[in-house]
Amino acid sequence: MGGYLSSVLRYSTGTFVLLLALSSPAHADEGFWTFDNVPASKVAAKYGFAPSQAWLQHVRSASLRLTGSTGCSASFISPNGLIMTNHHCAVSCVASLSTSAVDYVNSGFYAKSQADEVKCPGLEADQLLTIADVTREHLAATKGKTGKAYTDATRAENAKLQKACVGNPAMRCDVVALYHGGVYDLYTYHRYRDVRLAFAPEYAVAQFGGDPDNFNFPRFDFDVALLRAYDKDLAASTPEYLRWSPNGSSAGQLVFVAGNPGGTSRENTIAQLEYLRDIALPWYFGNLAELRGRLAEYAAQSPEAARRSKDLRFGIENEYKRQFGGLEALLDPTFFGSLREKERILQAAVAARPALQSEYGNAWAKLAAVQKERARLFLSRSYKYPSGTYWNFAQTLVRLPVEKAKPDAQRLPEFSDAALVTLPDELFDPSPIYSDLEEVQLAFFLDDLRRQFGPDDAYVKLALQGRSPSEQAHYLISNTRLADVAYRKVLYEGGEAAIDSSTDSFIVLARSLDAQMRAAQSEYENKVMNPTDQLSGQIAKARFAITGTSVYPDGTFSLRLSYGAVEGFSDDRGTFAPFTTIGGLFARASGADPYVLPSSWLNARASLDMETPMNLSTTNDVIGGNSGSPLINKEAQVVGLVFDGNIHSLGGYYGYDPRLNRTISVDSRALIEGLSKVYHADRLVTEILGNNS
Amino acid sequence: MGGYLSSVLRYSTGTFVLLLALSSPAHADEGFWTFDNVPASKVAAKYGFAPSQAWLQHVRSASLRLTGSTGCSASFISPNGLIMTNHHCAVSCVASLSTSAVDYVNSGFYAKSQADEVKCPGLEADQLLTIADVTREHLAATKGKTGKAYTDATRAENAKLQKACVGNPAMRCDVVALYHGGVYDLYTYHRYRDVRLAFAPEYAVAQFGGDPDNFNFPRFDFDVALLRAYDKDLAASTPEYLRWSPNGSSAGQLVFVAGNPGGTSRENTIAQLEYLRDIALPWYFGNLAELRGRLAEYAAQSPEAARRSKDLRFGIENEYKRQFGGLEALLDPTFFGSLREKERILQAAVAARPALQSEYGNAWAKLAAVQKERARLFLSRSYKYPSGTYWNFAQTLVRLPVEKAKPDAQRLPEFSDAALVTLPDELFDPSPIYSDLEEVQLAFFLDDLRRQFGPDDAYVKLALQGRSPSEQAHYLISNTRLADVAYRKVLYEGGEAAIDSSTDSFIVLARSLDAQMRAAQSEYENKVMNPTDQLSGQIAKARFAITGTSVYPDGTFSLRLSYGAVEGFSDDRGTFAPFTTIGGLFARASGADPYVLPSSWLNARASLDMETPMNLSTTNDVIGGNSGSPLINKEAQVVGLVFDGNIHSLGGYYGYDPRLNRTISVDSRALIEGLSKVYHADRLVTEILGNNS
Repeated sequence: MGGYLSSVLRYSTGTFVLLLALSSPAHADEGFWTFDNVPASKVAAKYGFAPSQAWLQHVRSASLRLTGSTGCSASFISPNGLIMTNHHCAVSCVASLSTSAVDYVNSGFYAKSQADEVKCPGLEADQLLTIADVTREHLAATKGKTGKAYTDATRAENAKLQKACVGNPAMRCDVVALYHGGVYDLYTYHRYRDVRLAFAPEYAVAQFGGDPDNFNFPRFDFDVALLRAYDKDLAASTPEYLRWSPNGSSAGQLVFVAGNPGGTSRENTIAQLEYLRDIALPWYFGNLAELRGRLAEYAAQSPEAARRSKDLRFGIENEYKRQFGGLEALLDPTFFGSLREKERILQAAVAARPALQSEYGNAWAKLAAVQKERARLFLSRSYKYPSGTYWNFAQTLVRLPVEKAKPDAQRLPEFSDAALVTLPDELFDPSPIYSDLEEVQLAFFLDDLRRQFGPDDAYVKLALQGRSPSEQAHYLISNTRLADVAYRKVLYEGGEAAIDSSTDSFIVLARSLDAQMRAAQSEYENKVMNPTDQLSGQIAKARFAITGTSVYPDGTFSLRLSYGAVEGFSDDRGTFAPFTTIGGLFARASGADPYVLPSSWLNARASLDMETPMNLSTTNDVIGGNSGSPLINKEAQVVGLVFDGNIHSLGGYYGYDPRLNRTISVDSRALIEGLSKVYHADRLVTEILGNNS
Repeated sequence: MGGYLSSVLRYSTGTFVLLLALSSPAHADEGFWTFDNVPASKVAAKYGFAPSQAWLQHVRSASLRLTGSTGCSASFISPNGLIMTNHHCAVSCVASLSTSAVDYVNSGFYAKSQADEVKCPGLEADQLLTIADVTREHLAATKGKTGKAYTDATRAENAKLQKACVGNPAMRCDVVALYHGGVYDLYTYHRYRDVRLAFAPEYAVAQFGGDPDNFNFPRFDFDVALLRAYDKDLAASTPEYLRWSPNGSSAGQLVFVAGNPGGTSRENTIAQLEYLRDIALPWYFGNLAELRGRLAEYAAQSPEAARRSKDLRFGIENEYKRQFGGLEALLDPTFFGSLREKERILQAAVAARPALQSEYGNAWAKLAAVQKERARLFLSRSYKYPSGTYWNFAQTLVRLPVEKAKPDAQRLPEFSDAALVTLPDELFDPSPIYSDLEEVQLAFFLDDLRRQFGPDDAYVKLALQGRSPSEQAHYLISNTRLADVAYRKVLYEGGEAAIDSSTDSFIVLARSLDAQMRAAQSEYENKVMNPTDQLSGQIAKARFAITGTSVYPDGTFSLRLSYGAVEGFSDDRGTFAPFTTIGGLFARASGADPYVLPSSWLNARASLDMETPMNLSTTNDVIGGNSGSPLINKEAQVVGLVFDGNIHSLGGYYGYDPRLNRTISVDSRALIEGLSKVYHADRLVTEILGNNS
């Protein structure tokens, strides 16, 4: 599950406007820029401030990416490793620390002293150290290669580039393909793998307004969690951290977002977008809708079922809204027409330069042909992977001895020497597994699988082993010992012999499906992913030849900077000022779920300043993965905490509308007001404000 | 809920071929023809047989439409009122006769003697008596009118035309708009309102293969139910009935389907189809997917929950497949391109004739403008109607005294004098209502409503009355007495005073929502439905001017005839012969749900002829509503019972592919084999075969 942010178009707004001229490829405030290519002069021209190299270096070092049980952004806000992110980015941790007796998701969590801070299983914070351009090395290694040879060469080259990280659990090396293969960079991170929970508010106020308010504004959420990075059981020393703004922000003011926007498709060709619109998204959206329905009814069965599924339901409901929003955006003829026109202009510019035309001119047609193959393989790829925690363990355990026996360069990427360093963390994650909830998901997956391929399909027969979907889900869940960490360790340490002799239901299933799954995966890589990489790289080069790097690359869940201003918006429903207030939160609290304030807030009501800004709207360009990003002013001080986008942002995977697309943050003043007056988290408030100025 | 049949396109078949030339507007075997316009010479040219007027008259009189708790087709197969239809068309009846103690859906039902036949609550069989062209009257009444004036004039004219039926519960008069308003016909029916269940097999064999096999072939279903029409408590005398074929059918043979295809959109303009593709279908499909998920999880809670929801789940799963199939068809660029080309050819033909061009030439652009309004009103219309049995009773009861006080011509159509005749049947239907199942649906509806409009919407606030969706669903269900037929009678008889003073939760809700719902309904009628009628009528006239009535009208759930041949098909998955066998049924019965044969079939195995044809595939053009239609040979003898279409038929709402689109029927020989050897329903077999020859 990625983060939370995204972008959508509602029905027939018919108002999407894209600036099409390639001479000015990014709108005012559009773009997630890599830290080595921030358009400082453009920012200065509009806002009178140009971020310096020192400023960028500082912000970059204070920014974090959260991985493991989440996919979010975060930042250091004290010299002692204190981390700010969203509640919804830490909710998996909060849930995994809870039991049916103590539900921290419901009650919130506050470590009164540092000693009370609790480790989040599987959560990791990555701090970007260096960016190195490795495009030349990548091109040299893959030159002239296609299909399997290209896959193998890419894997071998990546293994070589990531060597620096092998054996060092505190380092991560990622080869990042920017501009869909126009540029390859090696991103090196410091990994904080001991991250502990210091504070989380009650779910009810963190996600106030729940699903109906999600992706909407005006908004009133206290969507914050505070974590701390540890190093050898001590609070990490983090001299590069973000100070707190003494006064917050005001309308019109310049603000930046430093965070990790996830994969976007703004550079995709029309043929690629048609594939998404016509083939992939309708299926994916329907699939999410049905799972959403199953989980809603599961949760209605008991308070305990509601508790167990809360985190998952939040993720599914959020993803459902995102996918439907994305589909609607692509189905909007005005919006899609503007994307088509953008492609036409680029192609015309290429055609006007014979050298470009001869080298790159046919890349679009070739990529369109790849989409036909992609559509053909869609069923054989997307449907064939069972889902759930048990399955993930089983597949990893079954593949591990096979992959380990190969040279590093020939392994599946998730089993490279660099990746193996932290694999035990994932395998031995002690978070509780709820078998009844796993069974709901698995029964749905198997039912969907059979419906799509029919009962006569060979793979379906293997997956069902002669049972109905619900029987098979029940059988698998009832006959596995993988919930037991000790048993996973036995299989991990026992290698091939232990796996081959296991009669565990999921291990048996994973063994029997592995050959077909590997074949499907290879075919997809060789026929779709690799040609797409290569052809997209050609299109990127053609674009560079015309625009230079005055364009930003699509999101890749790596660190980017976005700039913008504090600003509201107007749409069919009304005109919305950029700030809401704590008073507005109380006014909205009807007492009917999900508009129920926890007693902590109700009790503190008299002490709170009702005029304190609660949430705010800014023009920054963000997307899923940016959740938890700091919103900072030009002094690099925190003025907010990004947690969402408005409803108009849901087309943002494909384009940015400067008039309507808005980022939503918790105001820094509400954060301090709540932490001090509602939660009396004085030690943390002092830590946050203490080093201010 | 309509019937069962429909048509779909799977991913990327890319093989749809439509014959576009207007000179030959219907393909070989394409079309559902009205009985007064069957293309006899065309049938004769291809198959060497032209149905005579006597033949048509006979088949028409033996054909039935089932309404009330279903929307299906059927036929008389004996002179004593014996009716053949599908099990899935009668399953609501079977379910309503069941209790938690005796589940006829599961066990099947056989009335050993005629005296044991049991009345199906709310089920009605309509026999078409006459067709009269009333186009002239309609045009005269509405001439020059638009908006509300047009609505009022139409209602008044319809009330006048239906006068013959007022006060006669054995008559139904329907004004049918054919060709989307090109022709208006008055269809007069004899209503059989006492229809009793004589035989239904076990659900497991009727729906053998369940959801995964639905819309697929090869197929092995025994999807039949036998009913009987009664007249004053005696078996109805029905001299016009279909004889049974002694030998069934064989490959290549000419066969006809007489039935009632539901609403299709083949005459829709591209702008109308774009509305469906881009706005309505994605929403509707997602909505069904989510409800499907909720019901699946509800059914998993207990065997009793599974029993209660079986009928509804079947309907939702079926509709889900249909809608997804329809959406995929419209998203297929080859298919949609062919529809676009068809429109272009028609427009060019109109443009070439100045008189036509000046009269009808701008209808397409005007209809496109109406689609913009339709999209704008989509939310305000589709989402605002609460769902469920209680709501339906409440809304009817609240509106009844208000409507009855108006002159007939000014009432909502469902309260016209003609309609009021049978309203008590619906209101006092004694079928059991399962409150837990109603609550699941209502909670989903309210949740969806709030998500779409947001919690600040005035209508949402009225609907939720300050509660969360699940709280409000629970409140409404817990505080209504509408499950009690006697209480519904009190409110019905008490009129306005009884309604106004009622504190029943649903009555209170229906009262408070009525003004907004009426306003939304009127706006939609005046701004969308009526202009669409008028403009579609103009396009129909332009088409007639070029093609005459050599084209068939879109489906209107009124009686039609389709012709075709017994034929299999070839697609990506293989080549399929037209017949399956009883042996194939046993081979497929793995024992895992839904491939479980009931003990009746397992016990009869040795006595059955395994070579007996089970199901068959024919090229007839059918759609939802055709379920239960007889498949007959040129002697008008039954050779099968239509129950489904293959997967390629799911684009059939928008077009027909002669190479792949197939109708699926139960073979007449399997029907007799099963009835006699499995069920020993000798009295019925004798009745069916007894009058043979």
